[in-house]
Amino acid sequence: MSEAPSPSLELPPLLVEQAVAAALDEDLGQAGDITTDAIIPPDAIGKAEIVARKEGVVAGLDLAEAAFRILDPDVTFTRVVGDGKKVAAGGVIAKVEGLTRALLTGERTALNFFNRLSGIATLTSSFVAAVKGTKARIACTRKTTPNLRAFEKYAVRAGGGVNHRFGLYDAVLVKDNHIAAAGGIFHALDMLRPRIGHLVKIEVEVETLSQLEEALRHPIDAVLLDNMDVGTMKKAVEMVNGRVVTEASGGVTLETVGEIAKTGVDVISVGALTHAPRSLDSSLEWVRA
Amino acid sequence: MSEAPSPSLELPPLLVEQAVAAALDEDLGQAGDITTDAIIPPDAIGKAEIVARKEGVVAGLDLAEAAFRILDPDVTFTRVVGDGKKVAAGGVIAKVEGLTRALLTGERTALNFFNRLSGIATLTSSFVAAVKGTKARIACTRKTTPNLRAFEKYAVRAGGGVNHRFGLYDAVLVKDNHIAAAGGIFHALDMLRPRIGHLVKIEVEVETLSQLEEALRHPIDAVLLDNMDVGTMKKAVEMVNGRVVTEASGGVTLETVGEIAKTGVDVISVGALTHAPRSLDSSLEWVRA
Amino acid sequence: MSEAPSPSLELPPLLVEQAVAAALDEDLGQAGDITTDAIIPPDAIGKAEIVARKEGVVAGLDLAEAAFRILDPDVTFTRVVGDGKKVAAGGVIAKVEGLTRALLTGERTALNFFNRLSGIATLTSSFVAAVKGTKARIACTRKTTPNLRAFEKYAVRAGGGVNHRFGLYDAVLVKDNHIAAAGGIFHALDMLRPRIGHLVKIEVEVETLSQLEEALRHPIDAVLLDNMDVGTMKKAVEMVNGRVVTEASGGVTLETVGEIAKTGVDVISVGALTHAPRSLDSSLEWVRA
Amino acid sequence: MSEAPSPSLELPPLLVEQAVAAALDEDLGQAGDITTDAIIPPDAIGKAEIVARKEGVVAGLDLAEAAFRILDPDVTFTRVVGDGKKVAAGGVIAKVEGLTRALLTGERTALNFFNRLSGIATLTSSFVAAVKGTKARIACTRKTTPNLRAFEKYAVRAGGGVNHRFGLYDAVLVKDNHIAAAGGIFHALDMLRPRIGHLVKIEVEVETLSQLEEALRHPIDAVLLDNMDVGTMKKAVEMVNGRVVTEASGGVTLETVGEIAKTGVDVISVGALTHAPRSLDSSLEWVRA
Amino acid sequence: MSEAPSPSLELPPLLVEQAVAAALDEDLGQAGDITTDAIIPPDAIGKAEIVARKEGVVAGLDLAEAAFRILDPDVTFTRVVGDGKKVAAGGVIAKVEGLTRALLTGERTALNFFNRLSGIATLTSSFVAAVKGTKARIACTRKTTPNLRAFEKYAVRAGGGVNHRFGLYDAVLVKDNHIAAAGGIFHALDMLRPRIGHLVKIEVEVETLSQLEEALRHPIDAVLLDNMDVGTMKKAVEMVNGRVVTEASGGVTLETVGEIAKTGVDVISVGALTHAPRSLDSSLEWVRA
Amino acid sequence: MSEAPSPSLELPPLLVEQAVAAALDEDLGQAGDITTDAIIPPDAIGKAEIVARKEGVVAGLDLAEAAFRILDPDVTFTRVVGDGKKVAAGGVIAKVEGLTRALLTGERTALNFFNRLSGIATLTSSFVAAVKGTKARIACTRKTTPNLRAFEKYAVRAGGGVNHRFGLYDAVLVKDNHIAAAGGIFHALDMLRPRIGHLVKIEVEVETLSQLEEALRHPIDAVLLDNMDVGTMKKAVEMVNGRVVTEASGGVTLETVGEIAKTGVDVISVGALTHAPRSLDSSLEWVRA
Repeated sequence: MSEAPSPSLELPPLLVEQAVAAALDEDLGQAGDITTDAIIPPDAIGKAEIVARKEGVVAGLDLAEAAFRILDPDVTFTRVVGDGKKVAAGGVIAKVEGLTRALLTGERTALNFFNRLSGIATLTSSFVAAVKGTKARIACTRKTTPNLRAFEKYAVRAGGGVNHRFGLYDAVLVKDNHIAAAGGIFHALDMLRPRIGHLVKIEVEVETLSQLEEALRHPIDAVLLDNMDVGTMKKAVEMVNGRVVTEASGGVTLETVGEIAKTGVDVISVGALTHAPRSLDSSLEWVRA
Repeated sequence: MSEAPSPSLELPPLLVEQAVAAALDEDLGQAGDITTDAIIPPDAIGKAEIVARKEGVVAGLDLAEAAFRILDPDVTFTRVVGDGKKVAAGGVIAKVEGLTRALLTGERTALNFFNRLSGIATLTSSFVAAVKGTKARIACTRKTTPNLRAFEKYAVRAGGGVNHRFGLYDAVLVKDNHIAAAGGIFHALDMLRPRIGHLVKIEVEVETLSQLEEALRHPIDAVLLDNMDVGTMKKAVEMVNGRVVTEASGGVTLETVGEIAKTGVDVISVGALTHAPRSLDSSLEWVRA
Repeated sequence: MSEAPSPSLELPPLLVEQAVAAALDEDLGQAGDITTDAIIPPDAIGKAEIVARKEGVVAGLDLAEAAFRILDPDVTFTRVVGDGKKVAAGGVIAKVEGLTRALLTGERTALNFFNRLSGIATLTSSFVAAVKGTKARIACTRKTTPNLRAFEKYAVRAGGGVNHRFGLYDAVLVKDNHIAAAGGIFHALDMLRPRIGHLVKIEVEVETLSQLEEALRHPIDAVLLDNMDVGTMKKAVEMVNGRVVTEASGGVTLETVGEIAKTGVDVISVGALTHAPRSLDSSLEWVRA
Repeated sequence: MSEAPSPSLELPPLLVEQAVAAALDEDLGQAGDITTDAIIPPDAIGKAEIVARKEGVVAGLDLAEAAFRILDPDVTFTRVVGDGKKVAAGGVIAKVEGLTRALLTGERTALNFFNRLSGIATLTSSFVAAVKGTKARIACTRKTTPNLRAFEKYAVRAGGGVNHRFGLYDAVLVKDNHIAAAGGIFHALDMLRPRIGHLVKIEVEVETLSQLEEALRHPIDAVLLDNMDVGTMKKAVEMVNGRVVTEASGGVTLETVGEIAKTGVDVISVGALTHAPRSLDSSLEWVRA
Repeated sequence: MSEAPSPSLELPPLLVEQAVAAALDEDLGQAGDITTDAIIPPDAIGKAEIVARKEGVVAGLDLAEAAFRILDPDVTFTRVVGDGKKVAAGGVIAKVEGLTRALLTGERTALNFFNRLSGIATLTSSFVAAVKGTKARIACTRKTTPNLRAFEKYAVRAGGGVNHRFGLYDAVLVKDNHIAAAGGIFHALDMLRPRIGHLVKIEVEVETLSQLEEALRHPIDAVLLDNMDVGTMKKAVEMVNGRVVTEASGGVTLETVGEIAKTGVDVISVGALTHAPRSLDSSLEWVRA
Repeated sequence: MSEAPSPSLELPPLLVEQAVAAALDEDLGQAGDITTDAIIPPDAIGKAEIVARKEGVVAGLDLAEAAFRILDPDVTFTRVVGDGKKVAAGGVIAKVEGLTRALLTGERTALNFFNRLSGIATLTSSFVAAVKGTKARIACTRKTTPNLRAFEKYAVRAGGGVNHRFGLYDAVLVKDNHIAAAGGIFHALDMLRPRIGHLVKIEVEVETLSQLEEALRHPIDAVLLDNMDVGTMKKAVEMVNGRVVTEASGGVTLETVGEIAKTGVDVISVGALTHAPRSLDSSLEWVRA
């Protein structure tokens, strides 16, 4: 998140193109923008700005830009506030100039992506602010919008959070059902070891201190302290004593996150970051000549 | 929305398959569910229920079912409360039985779709309830999640609302930028007429009564009354006097919608239905033998 | 359809790219153009013109251009006669200059699209000419070539026609089977009303004047007068008396369309525009240095 | 083309599924069949027949069946007249029974494929009949509908014709531009030989007898006699004297094909088979209980 | 890898379907299996066995089965030797019965997948055998066949190996270029820490003992000992002393792997497993009635 | 294969783009190159060379270039040794300059394609060298890597070989199973003739001289002499006496190919070219400023 706002190179470029092209396709159907095509001359040029109506943290400019660029390859899109940066209410986030048709037709697709992702970044930054002064990091979960996960995980990073595993494939999380099926943590880990490569971490979900005690007897990388009250969690952190990463999870809100962080946990995961964000309130304002 | 809960036939079947398959792909990556595959035997059978933690209106069971069925073609998925129906807190929505691996692996994908769509249906039904006794219908907008629009529009219908246009292609909505570019409503409609087929409706956005007066001089089908205060809107409805459909739009909330409805407008469109719903709080609960 | 021939911005750009890329793929397979690749040097440059052998109306230059551009991004493609314009027999429609390989390899794909679409535009313009002086507009139907509908509907517009609904999704057309299943028009419309948004038009198909009388008792937008003889149709138009749009349909030919138009119907839909056009007879002629 | 009508196994099954699914998607969009979904109960069962209004040769039942089956996996589709067989005017081609919604919604997609392909088969069979008694075989060209080539080539076979090369990839056809670029047939073949595998045939296009003479000096497999008058073609066939395959091409019509065949050519290729067929006139007729 | 051979549930099912369908498409093109379709009756039934000509370890039966099943949904495919098991020379691996056309047409696609994957499993098992008695595990690298990685990584597991990271996305591997660009390991790790989630492991590549010493001063999870001779590697393992995972890498062969394992490293990664396997020599043998 | 190394225009351009984009997607997943993105500044520029560690024949530069270009559209990629040319050990094959991130992230994908294809070209050129002085040409088979066939067939051509049929669709190969099912070669060819176009070659597989004698009685284009010993093959070639193309097949190795060639066969097909090549040993070496 460098000082000068610049295109994020963190999002695999093909993902951006594919998602935005599909969304334009969704909005244009087979007949296209029948209002704009009938009224706006094909060579008319326009100028507009993405303006924040309320303050927030920016995320998703790559997707907004792609929406206009796909419709007009010669569009210029200038970032005023880059991804990961705060914008004040009324602030200009980006300027776009190109075919008027492209601006009118791409507007909603650009904002549908951008406002959602900026909403996630903004909410994440609030949680991050609420744990300031502790060592806790704020993480997202897999409760993301289907088929937008890469972008939502990115928005969490833009908001100052970190990512939990991306899917079922990149880390092991042993839950109660797994433990029950295996006949105990010992057996579950025993089954895992020969099949899991040396670059995959293993986290175990526990709900009680005695489960935690059991889990810590085995070579694992992290424990997920599920739905513990703050008192129990504090004891859990002490019991772990830095041997593995500790993660607090379960119904965390902006009201409760600060106290949870004070227990000394390393990570607090918050499903609401991605399943209940308020979209950023930004819009495309036309700049008349 | 028949009495007996049944699969919705309103969602084009290929859309459901494609979206759910893509979401499973997103969660499984190339390595799959490495935790479950290592621990759960391939032929173990399990049983679980989708249970609502809070009350709400159900939408999206086709997608939840598809998530499990794609992973286990022989799964049985029984609907207890169908799409469009209310479920009470603690109520069982559906029962699913099949390979334990399929249930564990498909759970998050199923719920990510289902909870989001049910959240939209639930919010819609609140708006619908708030205008009960008036003739106003509640409609969604194009502020939907990219690439999920068909499902979110469907969820609005399940919640008792109606759909605004699906995209830029299926109805004309003339906005201020179009009118300015054309040099007035008269010219805009003049450009539209030769290009728009006889089964496409034309709606014009107006912000003032004088704009409305101008719009009504032309053969249009609907007017969008944008961001008018309730008093002005009442006058607008009187001025229209049933000649065209009237639609109220702009920052509508559950607090304001009732009063807006009393102005006599035909339709109230609410962007928040799809861009700011709370996900339904439901989860997959295991049924032990 | 501006005076200066220019790229059509009415076709969603991604649709053009995808369809042309797929068609090139269909023609190139995995081995490519084995004749040209073996004989023509990779850097040879050529020049050719698309020339009409017979007169017609042009449509589909975007697709022709895409066929060459995908094979040679630096190709220049200059339109002499734009979409929607007449070309005389022997007239040059467009000039193309670029890698000789790209011209030879892309030729058939370009012409397969272009000649078919221009054939549709040409046939449409004949129907439009045949109803000149009446208020009737010529519309296409859903009898289009599978997976080319967006382009064929566009070609109808280029030929001076208008589009009927694009699919089953963007307008309601109540046919006899629907009426029978519902137990009458009244019930059918009763079922439709709560589910159809305010920007969707409703058309009812009728075959007799008594069916028409029944239909007109309900709030609908258009009637499709199916297979009526000219005398009956005239009475139907009088009975409607401008209250709803009237559409004539069923076996319309260039011979009969003029008389049908004189009945005063608003729209005449002609399936043959898209299912039985003659391709325009144009070819790629090489310009030797 | 066995006696008992049966599914064609000649069409790669995935091609059929993909093309029909895409065409249904094109017709259903995101909202689906809004008329049928509102009026027809989800569990209503219907019965219908595909009936020919005029006589013709059947082709494309696999695609028609797929249209209904994708919408209702339990549909039964019974072939009365199989692909490649003649149907009389008024004859029943196939019977279909299943969800009424699936029948109504799939009807147009099924017929758009089926009528086009049967039209091609019918036209092909007329050409085949017109050369009866000669050794000439009727072949199609690459002037096919973009992205439907596999099906149209199949329809030509169903009509009794044979296929020319499928694309630029599966046979060499040396045209005048290639010869000019190479500096003569000798050089063109010299460039081809080291790059073309032993299972690829080489055909050379000639317009005059002297070009033919030159071509025959080289080891080639076939000559395309382009736009020769019947007298010249007869001499060409004599000059070839069975050493290579002879193909007549260029503006062949039903009126001229018989005489052309009598010149003794082996193959007559007819672009009109695929670029100018009349669709078969068949429709879906409901069978009331 | 249970005793009774059974379908692997470890491969995400959609990956298998997509890859095999694409490969069939590659082999069938648009004309299909023209030899088989012309000669074999559509309803002929056949029986065949996949037989190993040389001994090996089996992997990829899911893909072989899919090749036949896609062509004939009613095929029966019986596994005699399951994935991960040894088959002796001459041994029957699986039996398949179904439409003769499906067997002939699907044969090559099935074997192209199966023999390649079984070759990888076989080679992996040789490496695993060569390190028996040590604690070293054999891992693959990212040197896989493009677009087949999921299957090749699976084959490595079937052969008794473990997987290194699947891609650039699921673990951090800091190489010399990264360290140089960052200005030292310290800075590289400093940049990584705020951006990497708590479930992602960090491995650092070192070539010398002094680089190793430097790396071990930081909180990392693993070190990749790149191209070290056996003596140096032994010292490296001692220096690490169990604090992080040690991985040997670089030009490992069946001849050298045993000695490398004796240095005490935890993991030995072998690029040759996936970029230079010998395909298993198996074929489809017909069982005559 | 012109003197100056240049982009191959023989590979259909869309195939290259699609395969490389899919492979990048496979390596980047949803999180991208997490190591590089965290450490390397987005605007850093780097320079590197693809260097051969061992000598070989180059093939696949289009794919290597695409890997870098997709990640950085402004990359410059300069070919030093073109496809089809020999590179000595230590030789520079291509130079690439662009965003350091693009170079680091694209490296493995570029090399995974390039080394595999160059390995095939290299092996092919060894076989070609081994038959020098005879008229035999070296051909590949359908034993290719699934979904890479177009590229592998191309690499065979780059190595001086020719291609056998690309798939089941572009030539007829009658095998023993076909002959058995048809009841003899005569019947098999009888069934083929009416269905096979005039530009499709027919090859018949024979294992004995008496089968060959039988085959030669029919109008075919080529015979595949399957697994014959050299003595028998010599007699077969004499028996054929130039009437049809002769192809030797079955377990051909570098050791045996020379003697086989001396029998006078026209083509020798070698499955090992594509199913058992050694990848070229090349790597990306950084050029420090």
